[in-house]
Amino acid sequence: MMATPPITTVTRIAENQVRDRARLDALLDAAHIGHVGVAGDTGAPLVIPTAVTRDGDRLLLHGSTGSPWMRRARAGAQVCVAVTSFEGLVVARSAFESSIHYRSAVLFGVCAPITDESEKVRALDLFTSAVLPGRVDEVRRPTSKEIAATLVLALPIAHDPPNWSLKVNDGWPEDPDADIAGPAWAGVVPARVVYGPGVRAPDLRNGIEIPSSVRGLAES
Amino acid sequence: MMATPPITTVTRIAENQVRDRARLDALLDAAHIGHVGVAGDTGAPLVIPTAVTRDGDRLLLHGSTGSPWMRRARAGAQVCVAVTSFEGLVVARSAFESSIHYRSAVLFGVCAPITDESEKVRALDLFTSAVLPGRVDEVRRPTSKEIAATLVLALPIAHDPPNWSLKVNDGWPEDPDADIAGPAWAGVVPARVVYGPGVRAPDLRNGIEIPSSVRGLAES
Repeated sequence: MMATPPITTVTRIAENQVRDRARLDALLDAAHIGHVGVAGDTGAPLVIPTAVTRDGDRLLLHGSTGSPWMRRARAGAQVCVAVTSFEGLVVARSAFESSIHYRSAVLFGVCAPITDESEKVRALDLFTSAVLPGRVDEVRRPTSKEIAATLVLALPIAHDPPNWSLKVNDGWPEDPDADIAGPAWAGVVPARVVYGPGVRAPDLRNGIEIPSSVRGLAES
Repeated sequence: MMATPPITTVTRIAENQVRDRARLDALLDAAHIGHVGVAGDTGAPLVIPTAVTRDGDRLLLHGSTGSPWMRRARAGAQVCVAVTSFEGLVVARSAFESSIHYRSAVLFGVCAPITDESEKVRALDLFTSAVLPGRVDEVRRPTSKEIAATLVLALPIAHDPPNWSLKVNDGWPEDPDADIAGPAWAGVVPARVVYGPGVRAPDLRNGIEIPSSVRGLAES
């Protein structure tokens, strides 16, 4: 009898599985959004998008202390967090062989809350810095009330065995010879997220110039 | 005793809930990727990114007949599909008030397989057309073998009661007066996905020009 492979073993197009931790980190550091799965009251899954950021061997999640899914996760529910980056189209000579360029991480486990106030502030700064480098130095520090209203959870990123899988599709179309001989074009179309220039809030006071953090985004 | 609100009622920042079906459709038609949650063997949730497309009152999913999560969904497991669009940053005067511009749909239910071959082909064409309008007319038709190897599932989009929630954050920062009076800039930074020019596959035969479907993407 064959042993059941662990859930972190990619089953479909297994050659796209990547076991290099550095490439996991690169995805987690580039992505801003994750999708958290947690079982609801009836056991049926609930999937919620939320900001994610990495702190070494932990994936951090944060939100309101009143958030039902966060309360469940804080109470020890098993979670699954998917972090996906859409990076282009694979335009094959048939629809069947056409696909998407992506990087996709899936992490499994139980979260631990970060309760120490200074650790929490450090974690919250990481969220800000990941999305908008330099912004932490442009805003006031969080208040105790704000810190108390925020729940920060940490999902460990384990090494051995890993509690994560990473799947990357960054290749060319793989058409059969009969299609290559046909008339259809094939290639890839890269996609990326770009930021527009910052737009002033209607209530922004005169004389406050756009900060370097926001200027840096538009140039990236 | 208060009745428990349905799972489709947004709990956090409830004023961002949108109940307009046309806006749900607009998101589902613009997005290419969804995150499907399904309970695994142990009951713990599994979250998988996958292509999604809408066909009227159904959200379509497709993949290999060998895909474990699709087999579970086909067998009648409850699923939760989250479709999220990242649309910018809300740069408030504090980290606490800063957030993300997004559209987020979450749909719940049980999928039905599409088994009729001509219906399946029509559904597969919808996936292709949603990602790359016009491509269906540039490629050969799917073979019976390809159709048989593909599982297409349809998740109903229900009206009354709805089996979906939609949450949209597209507003300005909402800073307290004390922060508005301070020195920090505030505004929004829009983000969008852009496509680069198509890149020819290494095995593309000479003389095959880039098709109008791919040219159209780069201009969009």
